[in-house]
Amino acid sequence: MTALRVVIVGAGLVGASIGLALRQGGHTVHLNDKRPSHAIVAAGLGAGSAGPIPPSDVDLVVVAVPPAALAKVIAKALATYPHAVVTDVGSVKASVLAQLKRTEYDLSRYVGSHPMAGSQHTGPLTARANLFEDRTWVVTPHETSRPDAVQVVRDLATTCGSRVVELDVDEHDEAVAQVSHLPQLISSLTAGRLLDVPPDHLRLAGQGIRDVTRIAGSDPGLWRQIVAANATAVRTELAAVHAALGELLAVLDDPAAVEAFVARGREGTRALPGKHGHRATDYAHVVVEIPDAPGALARLFADVEVAEVNVEDLSIEHDDAREVGFLSIAVEPAHVPVLEAAMAAGGWTLRG
Amino acid sequence: MTALRVVIVGAGLVGASIGLALRQGGHTVHLNDKRPSHAIVAAGLGAGSAGPIPPSDVDLVVVAVPPAALAKVIAKALATYPHAVVTDVGSVKASVLAQLKRTEYDLSRYVGSHPMAGSQHTGPLTARANLFEDRTWVVTPHETSRPDAVQVVRDLATTCGSRVVELDVDEHDEAVAQVSHLPQLISSLTAGRLLDVPPDHLRLAGQGIRDVTRIAGSDPGLWRQIVAANATAVRTELAAVHAALGELLAVLDDPAAVEAFVARGREGTRALPGKHGHRATDYAHVVVEIPDAPGALARLFADVEVAEVNVEDLSIEHDDAREVGFLSIAVEPAHVPVLEAAMAAGGWTLRG
Repeated sequence: MTALRVVIVGAGLVGASIGLALRQGGHTVHLNDKRPSHAIVAAGLGAGSAGPIPPSDVDLVVVAVPPAALAKVIAKALATYPHAVVTDVGSVKASVLAQLKRTEYDLSRYVGSHPMAGSQHTGPLTARANLFEDRTWVVTPHETSRPDAVQVVRDLATTCGSRVVELDVDEHDEAVAQVSHLPQLISSLTAGRLLDVPPDHLRLAGQGIRDVTRIAGSDPGLWRQIVAANATAVRTELAAVHAALGELLAVLDDPAAVEAFVARGREGTRALPGKHGHRATDYAHVVVEIPDAPGALARLFADVEVAEVNVEDLSIEHDDAREVGFLSIAVEPAHVPVLEAAMAAGGWTLRG
Repeated sequence: MTALRVVIVGAGLVGASIGLALRQGGHTVHLNDKRPSHAIVAAGLGAGSAGPIPPSDVDLVVVAVPPAALAKVIAKALATYPHAVVTDVGSVKASVLAQLKRTEYDLSRYVGSHPMAGSQHTGPLTARANLFEDRTWVVTPHETSRPDAVQVVRDLATTCGSRVVELDVDEHDEAVAQVSHLPQLISSLTAGRLLDVPPDHLRLAGQGIRDVTRIAGSDPGLWRQIVAANATAVRTELAAVHAALGELLAVLDDPAAVEAFVARGREGTRALPGKHGHRATDYAHVVVEIPDAPGALARLFADVEVAEVNVEDLSIEHDDAREVGFLSIAVEPAHVPVLEAAMAAGGWTLRG
């Protein structure tokens, strides 16, 4: 897009990171925060200028404030910046749009959006230009959004390196209840349980519990607002998980049922899109016999590297009848021919 | 410890990683796996030799096989290697010890242990020498363990870079139910729910759900065995979390209660020991006024670097009355004087 003059309202992690990405893209950014120290820190990190700009010069306003303040700040931006497209990056969309519809403002310049990136950290200190790279950025036009305004917001997302997904506000809110709000509350639930664990036992904590509870470090005040704004969808998810947990408790003495429960979870992780939006099951596998000679494996890996294909996963498979092992190399389907050729050229035995 | 001759039974991720660490420490390692391809791959990565060794030459046997096979393989190792200390790296300890006590073997050479490291991956391909670095390694001596055997196992753990914690088997099993088995099942629970989510919605998945569900990718057959071996303690934990989730559902419409719930989770994450075994609350904070001048923040960070102290955390604080912001720099308490001196030397204003 041509160089835009952008105002970012809210210089926290998300706002400051958008500022950094937009400036890298050659746009002009003005930062605005009711806590001046946030705007100063974000400006100090290179996310834009903390100084003023004539309101009628502004092309785009990005509202990156807490959920409870969104509608008010968006309305104010529509009033203050007469020619600007206004978007927000809030985590819940339907309730904000409903509030805006009750105002007197023309909403044709407003298009909601939601970048699916963030962190348990808040504030500009951990901001980075690539926060949104390869992430999904949902754009939620409503009935009266102007097509050119929608395009400006889509361009904002792609400038930040994101993939755009368009959804209506209700579908967005159901989706985030499922993939964001439920995991948050489950993480908080698991972390809260740690307060009942003796400190001696906590010394045994490994990476698993840290991963599960990482997002439990998030801001309680923020999540109070998010849950309040999306209560119905969140309740549906929590109730389903509560029931599933009850079912697990009922079958805990049945090893086969426990295995099926864990297998179902593993299946669920595979349903998540992988790197670059692929599903893990979209990869193709090149299968090579494992050599039983010193140093041969290192040579095999070197030959894989020579092929210059991205290895997405590696696993070992067995042929019990022949007492032989195979290395299964997962790659993008398009890369199979070049990898197979490289393996054959190196003298490795491919499973036919 | 002096150079030992070690046999590792089970050349999966944990066994192969121990092999790599022991060889780095100058010890001789022999690898043994009922799937020969695993032993060959582990040997090919440098974790030891896949060839035979005279049994009476062996000083230490590390049993790294699935939980259900532990007691049998440990007993066999005691019988096969007449002079060796035998340990295992299994995730559940009391039931294995009970099974061993029902055999005819002298258990004075057996000392259980459990390194708190691993991965959702299995097999030797992702093995690495530093898998156990800075992790806790629990050593679980029993009444008849010989003190010199206990010392050999403690040395094994420190050679691998771990911190040793001694616990009796029952306390170990309760602790892992709390910090390992509960998070695993909660992660599986959350991941399983994703199978009910439309693929369109899964495109909104960000890092949070990926973190929460990472360990749900673990091997269902392994977890079937772990849960069966530690059912009582696991049930207690699951029931507590089931009740807490029910309580959350009951108060979901009360924003203050939701905030308190999320805050309790955040408090729980802070109870986990941080890097190097410290609690986050053990850090001291040096607080510097945030300068409002272009480039000043970069200069400030440069001065912090000059002080050569490890920055554990950074946060922004506000003084609303004075409309000024502060940067709070968390460091080890011992590093406060040197950082304060560096800040003063750089002309920065410290909050008194």
